[in-house]
Amino acid sequence: MTDYRRLRVALLGAGVVGSQVAALLRQHADELADRAGAHLEIVGIAVRDVDAPRAVDLPRELFTTDAESLIVGADIVIELMGGIEPARTYLLQAINSGADVVTANKALLATHGPEIFEAADQVGAQVYYEAAAAGAIPIIRPLRDSLAGDRVQRIMGIVNGTTNYILDRMDTEGADFADVLRQAQELGYAEADPTADIEGYDAAQKAAILASLAFHTSVPLDAVHREGITQIDASMIESARKAGYVIKLLAVCERVAEETGDEISVRVYPALVPREHPLASVHGANNAVFVQAEAAGNLMFYGAGAGGVQTASAVLGDVVSAARRHIAGGVGVGESTRANLPLLPFGKVNTQYQVTLEVADRQGVLATIATILSEGDVSIATVEQTVADESGDPLARVAADPRGIAKLVIGTHKAQEQNLSETVERLAASDVVDRVVSVLRVEGD
Amino acid sequence: MTDYRRLRVALLGAGVVGSQVAALLRQHADELADRAGAHLEIVGIAVRDVDAPRAVDLPRELFTTDAESLIVGADIVIELMGGIEPARTYLLQAINSGADVVTANKALLATHGPEIFEAADQVGAQVYYEAAAAGAIPIIRPLRDSLAGDRVQRIMGIVNGTTNYILDRMDTEGADFADVLRQAQELGYAEADPTADIEGYDAAQKAAILASLAFHTSVPLDAVHREGITQIDASMIESARKAGYVIKLLAVCERVAEETGDEISVRVYPALVPREHPLASVHGANNAVFVQAEAAGNLMFYGAGAGGVQTASAVLGDVVSAARRHIAGGVGVGESTRANLPLLPFGKVNTQYQVTLEVADRQGVLATIATILSEGDVSIATVEQTVADESGDPLARVAADPRGIAKLVIGTHKAQEQNLSETVERLAASDVVDRVVSVLRVEGD
Repeated sequence: MTDYRRLRVALLGAGVVGSQVAALLRQHADELADRAGAHLEIVGIAVRDVDAPRAVDLPRELFTTDAESLIVGADIVIELMGGIEPARTYLLQAINSGADVVTANKALLATHGPEIFEAADQVGAQVYYEAAAAGAIPIIRPLRDSLAGDRVQRIMGIVNGTTNYILDRMDTEGADFADVLRQAQELGYAEADPTADIEGYDAAQKAAILASLAFHTSVPLDAVHREGITQIDASMIESARKAGYVIKLLAVCERVAEETGDEISVRVYPALVPREHPLASVHGANNAVFVQAEAAGNLMFYGAGAGGVQTASAVLGDVVSAARRHIAGGVGVGESTRANLPLLPFGKVNTQYQVTLEVADRQGVLATIATILSEGDVSIATVEQTVADESGDPLARVAADPRGIAKLVIGTHKAQEQNLSETVERLAASDVVDRVVSVLRVEGD
Repeated sequence: MTDYRRLRVALLGAGVVGSQVAALLRQHADELADRAGAHLEIVGIAVRDVDAPRAVDLPRELFTTDAESLIVGADIVIELMGGIEPARTYLLQAINSGADVVTANKALLATHGPEIFEAADQVGAQVYYEAAAAGAIPIIRPLRDSLAGDRVQRIMGIVNGTTNYILDRMDTEGADFADVLRQAQELGYAEADPTADIEGYDAAQKAAILASLAFHTSVPLDAVHREGITQIDASMIESARKAGYVIKLLAVCERVAEETGDEISVRVYPALVPREHPLASVHGANNAVFVQAEAAGNLMFYGAGAGGVQTASAVLGDVVSAARRHIAGGVGVGESTRANLPLLPFGKVNTQYQVTLEVADRQGVLATIATILSEGDVSIATVEQTVADESGDPLARVAADPRGIAKLVIGTHKAQEQNLSETVERLAASDVVDRVVSVLRVEGD
């Protein structure tokens, strides 16, 4: 065995990911030493309960409840506890005691990223967080380094495996949201309390992290517009399919050219994605990040977005990188946030929409609706009845429908979010509209 | 403008990629300075002819024919000349005079990589080469850093845009190889001398680079088994389609568990890829690299594999990384090659095959063929006649075929390359076989 320098690695947390990281560090010790140029010695694993059952077999003497003692003197601290506190305090302690830190903690980075990066800059430490967005998929380094000379225009990411699993099963099986969610919980794809996933909080954290990297701007979590998937039902999925779309929960990070310069928009919502778009074929609990850059063009990164051993792969890549940096010397490279682009208010975002209405079936209805849309600066691209009828003009068919209620699906050209939402309110209030069935944005067209 | 340190950037070569790199460095100077933490000042562009026409408008005073003077005193040297010499000499000079180097030169790295990396290690310089494989797609950093803690099992890459463009058009249009090649040349997707692309030399260089990174082993170019696509004709594409496959030129880098430990196989050939595999939907001149890793599972990286401005994006990412490293201090991190895995001889590779034969139509033919395969240790998985006939057993149909010649498509289980090739020779020599139409490997099943 080569006589490498020893680096002291402290692990905070031994849950699904942490226990896999510990196991792989021990199992592949010689191989990792050859790659890192240093022995990566686990000096301890801080946990709340040293006697709790673990997913993998690890020596009991490694466990301790005393995280602070473990941190002192560690060269590399891996934080896999999750949550804000005490993770934040421990990470800052690690940085201030001279360690490089590796974390998969998206909640912490999305809310306290600037504080942690600033602390690292002060002492020349490095923060690694490949596992904090899209699990095993290498996306942090590509955005942070590979695309550092380019100008990212837009990111569309499927960054939450649970919601993709649910929407994909709804799409392939025609199943209802509640049924699929329950099955997902039984299979371990969704947590007992699924709020963070299905309401888009998890995706919003990842969106903030990706947007910060892509636009060289600290994007605070509360700047991310967020909508979940709980209102998506089987009929919306079916309508989307008929129109050539699939519904995906997307994290969209967009650079928008305004007259006064570029602004950025970061938003999470279920959107209609054309079936021929590469993101449409991301199935099950997988993740994918589609990046459009000025010079590079379209790129896509695909893989497992979660899972203990998959996420451990990303963590271990960071640990090896941290070790190589320790050996190489020099200070850490801070996050690039000097572009400091302003955030476009959500109301000013331009997207295409699909508005589904149930309307009264009588003369002049479509004229009334078209007038409301036109007055709201929302331009109509397509109008369809959802009940297929191959004969005649769709507009004429609406008036001629023999039933009392007609279902109208209106596709818009790009319109401003604020105009659209005001217009939808006016539609809902109009006496020709029986019900606004759904309003979905279209992305990737 | 922030008072950043100035870094002197020397550019060698102003072709399709080089001129874009120079233009973008100048156009986005302030933005790149903010990201790099340093002004990236082009001190000169070395070319053979300063008066040659350029794709983009650049100040004449930047051009020089004196590369060596330019290299002296540069902090970062970008080599985009291509070819082995004088690129190799200049890169070594740059490294030895203290510069970090950025190169897109796959031919040079695939043949002289160890010499260049060793020179960099000696002086603590860093070699960046994100653009050397798969153009704009970030694949070097993911393999080198993000997956450094994992164990890559297998890479399947579509890494040559020209051949993918040709095969894709043959597949979608049923066109012949020669016609599509001529059109590709007219459209600029293929060079006047297309040998490097269509014979797989370009893909083999990239395969050597990817395999070296993935397996932490210096893989010499001559260890890469290479076959081109010139023998692929419209009927083979059509047969593949009927069997649910598409033909792609693949770079396959594989870790093989042998009794004495892991060995690696690196090979480039046209292969049958199942239509549902993510690589099957990589169209046009795009590239994609599919990676299977022990912990991370399946990953895919997709994007533009060539093009001046696309490749410039990857080069500029490297330039920003080099600048950040200069500011941060410390020595460069060398390539990880200590695993030093042995190379599995091509004859020992195990794959599935599809063997298409024209055979005499008479009693006992299939028994004879099955015996030859069995004696060669090649196990039959499927036998099909290519002329569809819904009735009866395929084996029976061969014997019963009313024509003098029957076409047989034999799918094998995994078999050893050497056994297969010897078996195909015996089949060709057998008097029941009229002609061996094609032998294609199946990957990604």
